[in-house]
Amino acid sequence: MSRSEHNDQSLIAAIDLGSNSFHMIVARQEGDEIRPIERLGEKVQLAAGLDDQGVLSTEAMERGLACLSRFAQYVRGLPAQHIRVVGTNALRIATNADEFLAAAENVLGHAVDVIAGREEARLIFQGVAHTMAGQDEARLVVDIGGGSTEFAIGKGFNTTLLESLHMGCVVYTKRFFQEGLLSAQNFQAAYYAARLELLNIIEDCQQNAWSIAIGSSGTVKSIAFVLQGLGMTGSGITLEGLEHLRRQVIAAGHVDNLSLPGLKPDRVGIFPAGLAILMAVFEAFQIPKMAYSDGALREGLLYDMLGRFHHVDVRNKTVQALMRRYHVDMKHAKRVCKHAIKCFDQVSKAWFLEAEDRQLLGWAAQLHEIGLDISHAQFHKHGAYIIKHADLLGFSRDDQLRLAMLVRCHRRALSEDAFFDLVPGVATRMNKLAILLRIAILLNHVRDDELLPDYSLVPTSSGLSLTLGAGWLAEHPLTQADFEQEQQYLTKAGFSLSVQ
Amino acid sequence: MSRSEHNDQSLIAAIDLGSNSFHMIVARQEGDEIRPIERLGEKVQLAAGLDDQGVLSTEAMERGLACLSRFAQYVRGLPAQHIRVVGTNALRIATNADEFLAAAENVLGHAVDVIAGREEARLIFQGVAHTMAGQDEARLVVDIGGGSTEFAIGKGFNTTLLESLHMGCVVYTKRFFQEGLLSAQNFQAAYYAARLELLNIIEDCQQNAWSIAIGSSGTVKSIAFVLQGLGMTGSGITLEGLEHLRRQVIAAGHVDNLSLPGLKPDRVGIFPAGLAILMAVFEAFQIPKMAYSDGALREGLLYDMLGRFHHVDVRNKTVQALMRRYHVDMKHAKRVCKHAIKCFDQVSKAWFLEAEDRQLLGWAAQLHEIGLDISHAQFHKHGAYIIKHADLLGFSRDDQLRLAMLVRCHRRALSEDAFFDLVPGVATRMNKLAILLRIAILLNHVRDDELLPDYSLVPTSSGLSLTLGAGWLAEHPLTQADFEQEQQYLTKAGFSLSVQ
Repeated sequence: MSRSEHNDQSLIAAIDLGSNSFHMIVARQEGDEIRPIERLGEKVQLAAGLDDQGVLSTEAMERGLACLSRFAQYVRGLPAQHIRVVGTNALRIATNADEFLAAAENVLGHAVDVIAGREEARLIFQGVAHTMAGQDEARLVVDIGGGSTEFAIGKGFNTTLLESLHMGCVVYTKRFFQEGLLSAQNFQAAYYAARLELLNIIEDCQQNAWSIAIGSSGTVKSIAFVLQGLGMTGSGITLEGLEHLRRQVIAAGHVDNLSLPGLKPDRVGIFPAGLAILMAVFEAFQIPKMAYSDGALREGLLYDMLGRFHHVDVRNKTVQALMRRYHVDMKHAKRVCKHAIKCFDQVSKAWFLEAEDRQLLGWAAQLHEIGLDISHAQFHKHGAYIIKHADLLGFSRDDQLRLAMLVRCHRRALSEDAFFDLVPGVATRMNKLAILLRIAILLNHVRDDELLPDYSLVPTSSGLSLTLGAGWLAEHPLTQADFEQEQQYLTKAGFSLSVQ
Repeated sequence: MSRSEHNDQSLIAAIDLGSNSFHMIVARQEGDEIRPIERLGEKVQLAAGLDDQGVLSTEAMERGLACLSRFAQYVRGLPAQHIRVVGTNALRIATNADEFLAAAENVLGHAVDVIAGREEARLIFQGVAHTMAGQDEARLVVDIGGGSTEFAIGKGFNTTLLESLHMGCVVYTKRFFQEGLLSAQNFQAAYYAARLELLNIIEDCQQNAWSIAIGSSGTVKSIAFVLQGLGMTGSGITLEGLEHLRRQVIAAGHVDNLSLPGLKPDRVGIFPAGLAILMAVFEAFQIPKMAYSDGALREGLLYDMLGRFHHVDVRNKTVQALMRRYHVDMKHAKRVCKHAIKCFDQVSKAWFLEAEDRQLLGWAAQLHEIGLDISHAQFHKHGAYIIKHADLLGFSRDDQLRLAMLVRCHRRALSEDAFFDLVPGVATRMNKLAILLRIAILLNHVRDDELLPDYSLVPTSSGLSLTLGAGWLAEHPLTQADFEQEQQYLTKAGFSLSVQ
């Protein structure tokens, strides 16, 4: 494939910056179907470069960037909405992830989203669901990665449970098999550590029925292949097969002596830890048999992108669920959302705002009151806390943080450095969205269904001019007082709002 | 009353460190009844000493401490459980409140609890409910203080709504009548600011029916008395009466010229702001008539104490409500609570723990999983956040913070400085409670109802020794691995746990 092919508007790509390997898939979109035309994977072992303080080593970053520079030739020219690049556990926990992410974006010419564990689990399930036939039975999907393990239970394309645990084959290799020593004791320590992690989720999982267990990604794949090589797997992985492998691993005594049919050399080192984790998963879930699926995170990303093209955005569902869980006044949220979008549409052109800003503003309007569920005092801060920390399916971490920031800024002082964490261009845009949200909220502060006049909002050189129609404001002194207070808040933030 | 009377075990006292005045009430407890035998009040105007940065001035602190030194002679000798001293809005928001609180505790010889706005509203309602006859009709109780205004709706002794807003007569005087100028414009500005604050709660309030409006504390009292002095109040305060006062106030032009019958000189300055707030409350709630009640916060405190004597502790109800709201696994919470208390009872004597520590531990055990409602990742932190910020009725701010800290420390690393905000003695006790909680959780980590052996927990010179009985641990390798991990966490915190 050469770069000139990129003029083909049907190409889409997904890159997964995993804790063990980086993977890329390029595909051609044909209607609702996706035909992979290129797959690349490199063992980067990002997680192995994390020290005890969670700092990613320079070497690990260099390994990652070198890999991405190779991926880059395939994807540099793609339109932004045709590619998604996501980071998982190692980049979730690295304290200096930002440094790597900036360099990665620079190399790829595309944004990189770090996604939460449950979002990863959702995407993996979608990847499997779109790849493996048999939609009628409920599935348990397990993906043992380098730094985390994801679990999803569901049927067809709908999940009923998503979980993510901090255990993975790279991290457990470092923790339990440091010198490559394969003693029974080391193996048991890794196994019990995994069982303990699983205790955190097993009760919830048991409340979700499944009849077929499926594993995806490298660890399960290598185990399935080795069992096949040993002639032990007519129909999938069994506990008996795993037990056999465990004995083989311990008998080897050291990874240098470990030789199993079908095991790729670059996976030998992390094989024992992956095996211990999978055995713990088998025992905890009482899995009789597990099948391996080729579909995983990156396939899920491609189908998720396709969904967004076709306006089936899972993020809308997530926002609705959040509103329900935190007892939001739906009528009021809808009202504020309507007016926020109305305000947005009047200024978006002059303010160079884009479609994704419009979406973000709408979600913020719908969610701005969720913090009331904790306490009335400072509820904008509580709402921001919930949004920042909840598992928001479909959202990248950046989207999630921006949404939290907008909710944080919907009332009281609009601090100039509210968006200080963001790069300047984004901060300016967020500031504008916050102002539009605040105006929409003030217009609906008196929560009755009294009709507002057909107001207009016009950008000025130093801010905004809101016209509510002659006489209306005088007849509504409370709204007038409200906007006077708002003018003071905005003036302090260096923004001028005139209201007639 | 002399100090020698304090041998009378039926004496109880409550002190209310308000934003405008400090009040003390001393009473004799006779069965379920309370007979006030001493009331003192001093205008301290703590809130007037707050600058824009929320720093309490040295002068304001001195005024407060001088007042408390006078109260002290009455209450110094009382047993701790016979007195409650609470601070309200000015001490909630002062950034240097700790300094004042330490000095106040020193002067009084008793602990001072800062309480949240809704807790204040609850106590005010109880004070009114116990003081005014007529339990059959639903009541709206409004208490306009110096720094905040509390609202409660309920019937008998049960409330259906509690609210607190950041508006009060001292703060509004400072904000809108700085120079004592009583213009129509200043008055209107204060009135609209109050209306805007009220918009935050009015919709919720409208969902709670009431038929009788009652006002308590100084602002309402002075307005009721003035209207009485003017012969305008046959049966309570009306909007008509308030309108009349507003005209009088504006006609005076300046507080120095304001003279109204029955208005005490020390209330003249804050009268206009209190009037503007009360008018806004009348309009927002559409109150036809308001009666004044002598019962308020301090009476509520006395009856609350009486409840605790008789084992009707509202805090238990609060914890139950929190568990429901955040979808806690009740069965598991109950299990952990039972074992936490069992552990506590085995070491409390040797560790010098007290009854209130036992209570706190039980609540923490019941609430330790509430953070799961936000996300599984770091749920101990989310639980602590919720507890820290929610309106926990019946809890003082200190209790609430300690509860949050225990939940924060129930899993993962037990940081040595987790309790750094507390004074050393308290921090050591909290650390012990956290360890007991963690052990109780580990004993129940495998969430089935399998019977645990009859374990024993014995303090040692460097920590604790847990005996689970011969052979049991070997048969339960998962629990064994769990405790091995815990031993590592505790060793890092300088604590030794041996497990047999």
